[in-house]
Amino acid sequence: MDLSRRTLLAGATAAGAITALPAAAKAPLAGTQAAGFYRFKHGDFEVTTINDGFFVRPLAGFVKNAMDEDVKAAVDAARLPGNGVFIPFTTVVVNTGAKLVLIDCGNGDSGAPTSGKWMANFKAAGFDPKDVDTVIISHFHGDHINGLRLKDGSAVFPNAEVMVPAAEWAFWMDDARMNSVPEANRGGFMAARRVFAPMAKDVKQYDAGKEVVSGINAVAAPGHTPGHNVFMVASGNKKLMCLADTTNNPHLFARNPEWQAVFDMDGAMASDTRKKLLDMAAAEKAQVHMYHAPFPATGFIEKAGAGYRFEQAIWSSAL
Amino acid sequence: MDLSRRTLLAGATAAGAITALPAAAKAPLAGTQAAGFYRFKHGDFEVTTINDGFFVRPLAGFVKNAMDEDVKAAVDAARLPGNGVFIPFTTVVVNTGAKLVLIDCGNGDSGAPTSGKWMANFKAAGFDPKDVDTVIISHFHGDHINGLRLKDGSAVFPNAEVMVPAAEWAFWMDDARMNSVPEANRGGFMAARRVFAPMAKDVKQYDAGKEVVSGINAVAAPGHTPGHNVFMVASGNKKLMCLADTTNNPHLFARNPEWQAVFDMDGAMASDTRKKLLDMAAAEKAQVHMYHAPFPATGFIEKAGAGYRFEQAIWSSAL
Repeated sequence: MDLSRRTLLAGATAAGAITALPAAAKAPLAGTQAAGFYRFKHGDFEVTTINDGFFVRPLAGFVKNAMDEDVKAAVDAARLPGNGVFIPFTTVVVNTGAKLVLIDCGNGDSGAPTSGKWMANFKAAGFDPKDVDTVIISHFHGDHINGLRLKDGSAVFPNAEVMVPAAEWAFWMDDARMNSVPEANRGGFMAARRVFAPMAKDVKQYDAGKEVVSGINAVAAPGHTPGHNVFMVASGNKKLMCLADTTNNPHLFARNPEWQAVFDMDGAMASDTRKKLLDMAAAEKAQVHMYHAPFPATGFIEKAGAGYRFEQAIWSSAL
Repeated sequence: MDLSRRTLLAGATAAGAITALPAAAKAPLAGTQAAGFYRFKHGDFEVTTINDGFFVRPLAGFVKNAMDEDVKAAVDAARLPGNGVFIPFTTVVVNTGAKLVLIDCGNGDSGAPTSGKWMANFKAAGFDPKDVDTVIISHFHGDHINGLRLKDGSAVFPNAEVMVPAAEWAFWMDDARMNSVPEANRGGFMAARRVFAPMAKDVKQYDAGKEVVSGINAVAAPGHTPGHNVFMVASGNKKLMCLADTTNNPHLFARNPEWQAVFDMDGAMASDTRKKLLDMAAAEKAQVHMYHAPFPATGFIEKAGAGYRFEQAIWSSAL
C-alpha cells in the first residue's frame, strides 16, 4: 500500500497508464443545477423549501462591527461561493393539509440577476401559484415581498390571502415617516407601496404572538426591521422555527451572533433577538429554517464556542 | 418583545387568534423529494453526484468494535433518519469534456426497496446511459456494481468501457477461493460473476497507482475489500478525492475513524487507510466525495477532536 501524498496527489506518471480509447464525450457539459426544492414531513404537515437563487454582496463594510478581514476569514472557512458574501434566498411552503401556505416569497423579477429562480423551483416542486391559500410575510424587505407582484404589476398569487405584520405595516406604510427621510433613503418605503398598495384593502395585518394560520404562530423578532416576525410551525410533536432574517448567512452570523449586518436596521437589537432565538433552537433541538442559509436552508442549531453552528438537515430520497 | 420559551413554543391562545378563512388545500401532499443530483464545476470538468436512495441497516452489531449504545449516540447526534443506521448511496459522474465517466453505479434493481433511484436521477440530470464512455469500479460490493447489469441480464451502459481494480478481480473471480468458503458466504463471489461474467473478455483491469482516465488516478485503499480503490480527480488546480467506501456514513466513521463496520473485510486495515486519507483530505483542503455520506455526498473534511467532521459542500443554483 502506498498512500504517500506524492503518489496520491501528484498524479500517476504516463508510463504504465492505461490508454483510454479516443472518444468525444457524447454529453456536453450541462451547466445547470438540480431544481432547488427540498421536502420533509413535519408531523401532519408537509414542508417544502424553495430556493430563489442568491446574491453576492461585496464584503467590504457588510458587517458594521467587524473587521473585513475577520469577515473574509469566516467566508473562507465556510467555503462560500463567489467573491464577496454569498447570500442565498430560500422560502418555506407549508402544506397543512387544509391550506397551502407560503412564508415569504422571494425576489420575483425584481432581484439580482442571480436570483429569480423561485417560480421555476416552485413549479418543479409540483405547486401552482393559483393554489396558494395564504402568504405570510415576515418583514417588508424586497427579497421577501417582491415575489408577490411582478414588475408589470400583476399579482403572482391571485387567490391568496396576504398576511403581514401589523408593526411592519405601521412602519413602512406611514407616509409621514417616508417623507421625513431623505429621498435617497425611501427605497424600502417605495418597494412596500409598489407591492401592497394595489391590494391594501385586502391585506390582513397580524399581531405578533398570535396564531396566523392553524399551527403557525407569529413571534416578534425585532431588530432586523422594526416589525420583523419569525414563525413557529407546529404539528404533532414537531416544531419548526422559521427564523426569516434572524441571521443573514448563518455561516457568518450564527457563528458570530454579535455581528451586525448592514441590513439590520437596529443592529444591537437584532443581535439580542438572534441570541435568544438561537439559544432556544439549540436548547429545544427544534428544526430551524433560515432564509439566508445555503439551500436547503433548514437544519439544526448547536452551540459552538462563543457562537452557534448551523447543521444542515440530512437529505433523504424518502419523506 | 416577548421571546420567552412559553410564548414561542406553547402556541398562541385561541383568544385573539386571527381566524383563517375555511378552505381546503388545493394541493394534496406531494410525498416526493426533488431529483437527487448535485452538480459542480471542477476545473474544466463538470462533476455530478447521483443519489441511489438508501438502506437502513439494523444498528445492533453494525460496528464490530463499538458498543451499540455509542453507535446509537452517534446516529442520534447526526439526526440520521430511520430506525437504525442510515446508509445512503451516491455515485459520481465526471464529464471531462472528452469522456463521460461514472465512478461506481449503484444498486440497479438488486438493492433494498428504498434504493434503486439512480437511473431516474441520472436521467433527471440530463444523462443517457447510452452516452456513458467509461465506468470505473472502486470495488466489487453489490451496491457499487449491480447497477451495471439488471436482474434480467441486460447491460445498462451498452457503449461503456468497464474498468475494475485488478486486485479486486483477482480476489473475487478466483474460483478456488470461492469454493474454499462455506456456501453461505459465497454471495459476494456470485454477485461479481452475475455482473462481470457476461462481459469478462471486455472488462479492463487497472492497477492501483495508475491514471485510469485522463485526470482520474486510482489509488489503492485496501481494508474495506482487498482491492478497494479510491480516485483522485484533478482538473486545473482543483482536486477531488472520491473516497468510495473509505468510510461508511461519515457521521459515524469520520467522527470515529477507528470504528470498524461489519462491511470492512479487514477492519484494522480499513481504519488505517481511512485515517491516512482523511488526514490528507483535511491537510490538502481537497474536496471529497464519500459514497455513503448523505446526499449530495460531497464536501470537505476537518479535524474535530479525535476524529473528523464531514462538512457538506455549499449548494448553489449557479455552477
